[in-house]
Amino acid sequence: MKLESNAQGVYVIAPTPFHPDGRVDELSIDRMTDFFLKAGVSGMTVLGQLGEAPKMEHKESVDIVQRVIKRANVPVVVGVSAPGFAAMRALTQDAMAAGAAGVMIAPPNTLRTDDYIVQYYRQASEAIGADVPFVIQDYPLTFSVQMSPGVIRRIVAENPAAKVLKHEDWPGLEKITALRAWEKDGSMRHIAILTGNNALFLDFEMERGADGANTGYCFPDMLVDVVRLSKSGKRDEAHDLFDAHLPLIRYEQQPGPGLAVRKYVMMRRGIIGSDTLRKPGAALTPAARAEVDYLLSRLSQKDPRAKV
Amino acid sequence: MKLESNAQGVYVIAPTPFHPDGRVDELSIDRMTDFFLKAGVSGMTVLGQLGEAPKMEHKESVDIVQRVIKRANVPVVVGVSAPGFAAMRALTQDAMAAGAAGVMIAPPNTLRTDDYIVQYYRQASEAIGADVPFVIQDYPLTFSVQMSPGVIRRIVAENPAAKVLKHEDWPGLEKITALRAWEKDGSMRHIAILTGNNALFLDFEMERGADGANTGYCFPDMLVDVVRLSKSGKRDEAHDLFDAHLPLIRYEQQPGPGLAVRKYVMMRRGIIGSDTLRKPGAALTPAARAEVDYLLSRLSQKDPRAKV
Amino acid sequence: MKLESNAQGVYVIAPTPFHPDGRVDELSIDRMTDFFLKAGVSGMTVLGQLGEAPKMEHKESVDIVQRVIKRANVPVVVGVSAPGFAAMRALTQDAMAAGAAGVMIAPPNTLRTDDYIVQYYRQASEAIGADVPFVIQDYPLTFSVQMSPGVIRRIVAENPAAKVLKHEDWPGLEKITALRAWEKDGSMRHIAILTGNNALFLDFEMERGADGANTGYCFPDMLVDVVRLSKSGKRDEAHDLFDAHLPLIRYEQQPGPGLAVRKYVMMRRGIIGSDTLRKPGAALTPAARAEVDYLLSRLSQKDPRAKV
Amino acid sequence: MKLESNAQGVYVIAPTPFHPDGRVDELSIDRMTDFFLKAGVSGMTVLGQLGEAPKMEHKESVDIVQRVIKRANVPVVVGVSAPGFAAMRALTQDAMAAGAAGVMIAPPNTLRTDDYIVQYYRQASEAIGADVPFVIQDYPLTFSVQMSPGVIRRIVAENPAAKVLKHEDWPGLEKITALRAWEKDGSMRHIAILTGNNALFLDFEMERGADGANTGYCFPDMLVDVVRLSKSGKRDEAHDLFDAHLPLIRYEQQPGPGLAVRKYVMMRRGIIGSDTLRKPGAALTPAARAEVDYLLSRLSQKDPRAKV
Repeated sequence: MKLESNAQGVYVIAPTPFHPDGRVDELSIDRMTDFFLKAGVSGMTVLGQLGEAPKMEHKESVDIVQRVIKRANVPVVVGVSAPGFAAMRALTQDAMAAGAAGVMIAPPNTLRTDDYIVQYYRQASEAIGADVPFVIQDYPLTFSVQMSPGVIRRIVAENPAAKVLKHEDWPGLEKITALRAWEKDGSMRHIAILTGNNALFLDFEMERGADGANTGYCFPDMLVDVVRLSKSGKRDEAHDLFDAHLPLIRYEQQPGPGLAVRKYVMMRRGIIGSDTLRKPGAALTPAARAEVDYLLSRLSQKDPRAKV
Repeated sequence: MKLESNAQGVYVIAPTPFHPDGRVDELSIDRMTDFFLKAGVSGMTVLGQLGEAPKMEHKESVDIVQRVIKRANVPVVVGVSAPGFAAMRALTQDAMAAGAAGVMIAPPNTLRTDDYIVQYYRQASEAIGADVPFVIQDYPLTFSVQMSPGVIRRIVAENPAAKVLKHEDWPGLEKITALRAWEKDGSMRHIAILTGNNALFLDFEMERGADGANTGYCFPDMLVDVVRLSKSGKRDEAHDLFDAHLPLIRYEQQPGPGLAVRKYVMMRRGIIGSDTLRKPGAALTPAARAEVDYLLSRLSQKDPRAKV
Repeated sequence: MKLESNAQGVYVIAPTPFHPDGRVDELSIDRMTDFFLKAGVSGMTVLGQLGEAPKMEHKESVDIVQRVIKRANVPVVVGVSAPGFAAMRALTQDAMAAGAAGVMIAPPNTLRTDDYIVQYYRQASEAIGADVPFVIQDYPLTFSVQMSPGVIRRIVAENPAAKVLKHEDWPGLEKITALRAWEKDGSMRHIAILTGNNALFLDFEMERGADGANTGYCFPDMLVDVVRLSKSGKRDEAHDLFDAHLPLIRYEQQPGPGLAVRKYVMMRRGIIGSDTLRKPGAALTPAARAEVDYLLSRLSQKDPRAKV
Repeated sequence: MKLESNAQGVYVIAPTPFHPDGRVDELSIDRMTDFFLKAGVSGMTVLGQLGEAPKMEHKESVDIVQRVIKRANVPVVVGVSAPGFAAMRALTQDAMAAGAAGVMIAPPNTLRTDDYIVQYYRQASEAIGADVPFVIQDYPLTFSVQMSPGVIRRIVAENPAAKVLKHEDWPGLEKITALRAWEKDGSMRHIAILTGNNALFLDFEMERGADGANTGYCFPDMLVDVVRLSKSGKRDEAHDLFDAHLPLIRYEQQPGPGLAVRKYVMMRRGIIGSDTLRKPGAALTPAARAEVDYLLSRLSQKDPRAKV
């Protein structure tokens, strides 16, 4: 299964479950993978930013990739962003050898001009192999790199292996509209647009032309439903479901504690065994934990999935 | 009326209404002021970031300050952030002469260490006059300046005129908790904490110890109600009302188009005459406008105020 | 005298002399202006970053502009960079009314994509008047805005009023070469390139195609000589003179204390009456002062101008 | 040989020599190591920023470390900066097992407050082992992290393993003075200060209290001499030698092309076999190469070492 530019649905960003002592929790990986598949995801992305990739040793990373791919019958994308092309290439080779569908590449946060960003993706694709399908990760809030629609078009034009845009610019609705308009007028080939940002704008992103989500909100089953409802034209129903989750989506979208929120809820839902983060990540404070409990309790009145 | 450290309630951030040709719309200023007062705000802040302050000439700024102060029977705070102390002092003098309650100062986005931030506020207070009450604006997302709780404590300790923290760090809940803990253990004097960020976390900020809001969401009347409900212990009611508005709050909180959303809704509500922004601000695209209309229509089913 | 795209020679960046108590020192302005003219500068730039522009009140700024223009028989460019177009337009109007040759505009440090930078200059030119000649200030070290050669070409193409590039990218030699190559192949119209960065690379910048310097090193008379020698093909002589000054150039180029160095030397040379900076600027420490004295003493063995 | 806080002299930053096809050039590593030792360096640092560390695969890195340590009879420090503690720990373990004297750690460029920087070094030291001596790399120009003197004092106080400050703040002279004053008044324990920044201020840094250099200028033999002359009180001689090299120092200090300059000169001096950089690094343009040749030719009139 290779990643293609007609990807759609939810490519869930998988966290990396750890035991309380920090070791990788393999049983939780399996259980989580099964949960995602049952929830109806179309693909999985492992070792992204919120998969705590920079905290993993190379061998650990490869083990996780192999384990997930073996179990999942959907395309698995592997985050390979690295400060240098050597590490990027090394992980890509191991991932593709294990059967990955493609890789995800974020730009280093020193890039400042359109030309440098375009050049970076050209060199990265060359470094990992021009036949390796990749996801462009456009996440300026974290990476401080601003890609205009025109830059994305240039990257897509230059690199046949660019198959998906993980869109998480903020604000970003007009960017989707601009890219889709270029597809329509023939000045840009089609690529899949899957949106991130913890789904904070998934409701309208779908309506602007996104193909799905590529994020890791703690209720990926809800993301699957919103994408399905939106695609089948059930606008109000999609928004109703989305709005019910928005208070928690917003809470989980906070940079920093967001990942701890996600793991805590997934633990409470019985998907993973512990909400442990590796350092420098930290667990939720008791006050934050109580707030999440309260949000879940409120949510459970609107969505039975939240009765945990 | 001087700004004091016991400030509370909603200090609404007022936009600056323009005619479609870009001139200041004075009748809309009056109408908006009346609307705010009737909505129950405790104070007003003019010429903040979202008051398009950098687009105003000095005389225009002073005219607005005078006009609002004359009409409002609540404390009026004036944003005086500027790249240099001369312009800051000049506007402060005119504002205080017109009867302002105090000024708001954001740090220039070149400050990078704790010491430089503390020194900046020391010098700013000295420049405008040590007797002029001021609001510390802590908004790292826009200003790229990170103030740790310890830095805020140092600023407060050094400057008796520091009366209010406009808290809009993100994430920021633990910061409120940290500051309030220091007040409790006696290591920091009390200052008011009024929160910004378009109220995206107002529900929990109140519970963490905030005294109110200092933001400009297009339904400031809702902010007043949430603050009141929260203070009177009606937690579920506060969250119910807040959650009803959250889809629109989130939409309006987008940097860039957010101000256009705010003005558009205030125009639709009949509060201001036009949603015009001065350049480089731009009006909403038709697609965005339709999205806001849809959000308003959904909101009106939960909050009659939104029937516009 | 309007600024034209055939500008060349040294457009000296003038500091703003203050009395020890912070007031503008008008006699020093006159003496400094006379000194510059006698040194052979081709133009003067006032109220740039190192003219402490953000510390000046509007009236002070206008007074300085008028005073300098009245006395100088060379084109005077006025720095009008501001956080908003209103202040930029106000100062431009007063400056042009006083007889300025043009204005200098730096981009605000929030611009992150090629398109936003190009749009900014389009809107700025429109705001100040499409007939007002302007200098593009390309200074990424301070402004954090990276302009690729392609962006500069787009700005020049869109704005007939763009006459000069104040080039102070670092590194920047290849940028000059790229721009001049485009002029040669006809894909870009000619504009003057005057270089900044305290002349740290003036020796090679001239050889790459610069037309002169637009900086404020404390020996502008040396800059005039280096430009002249370089243009007349006396390469070794140009480098000999330049190298003699390089230890001090480097010392003065430090961001922060650099301006204090400049003013201190100009005071020692008898050009201005005091080395006072307005806050938050600070005077040199005694240790730094002694280092500058030592550098001057060493320099005086190679260039008699430094015998002060 | 463990790194100690009484380190002094020149700890040369070693580039990584490559064959023209990009493979590591082991013979050049040996020749370069021999050259450094003969030049009188007190230590070597491998796999720093300018050692192209992020472009190396883990095994390549370890091979280089082992090769250099085996040959050198001076302390060898290994750059282990990484986006996560896992990779940092893995390389540290291999380096220390091979006999490294210590490691060098730069802060990730997302750190924005004093507290976060201090916490980062605490966690890093814990991650690699509290007994592993480390160098604090303070290089804001590249890493965008500003460490005030107070932050450095806190790091030193908390971490007994912090032995050396690689000082390359810019401007940075007052920082050295501040740290040495604290040592003198007993409020900070002594650590070695070795300066970087391609030695651009080495002349005065020595006089302010630095113990030597920790940089990789293409004439490390000159650095050794300047440090020696300065320590023995031969101020004028130190400056004379330094000034002769300053035109080239400045040229090589350019971020980006600087490393290509360094490798080109080292190739011309016969120290390494090729000036190849791994991507995204690029070779010098012909124009730049000619400029370096000219600088060398001029330098050779003052320092016979430059006759290459």
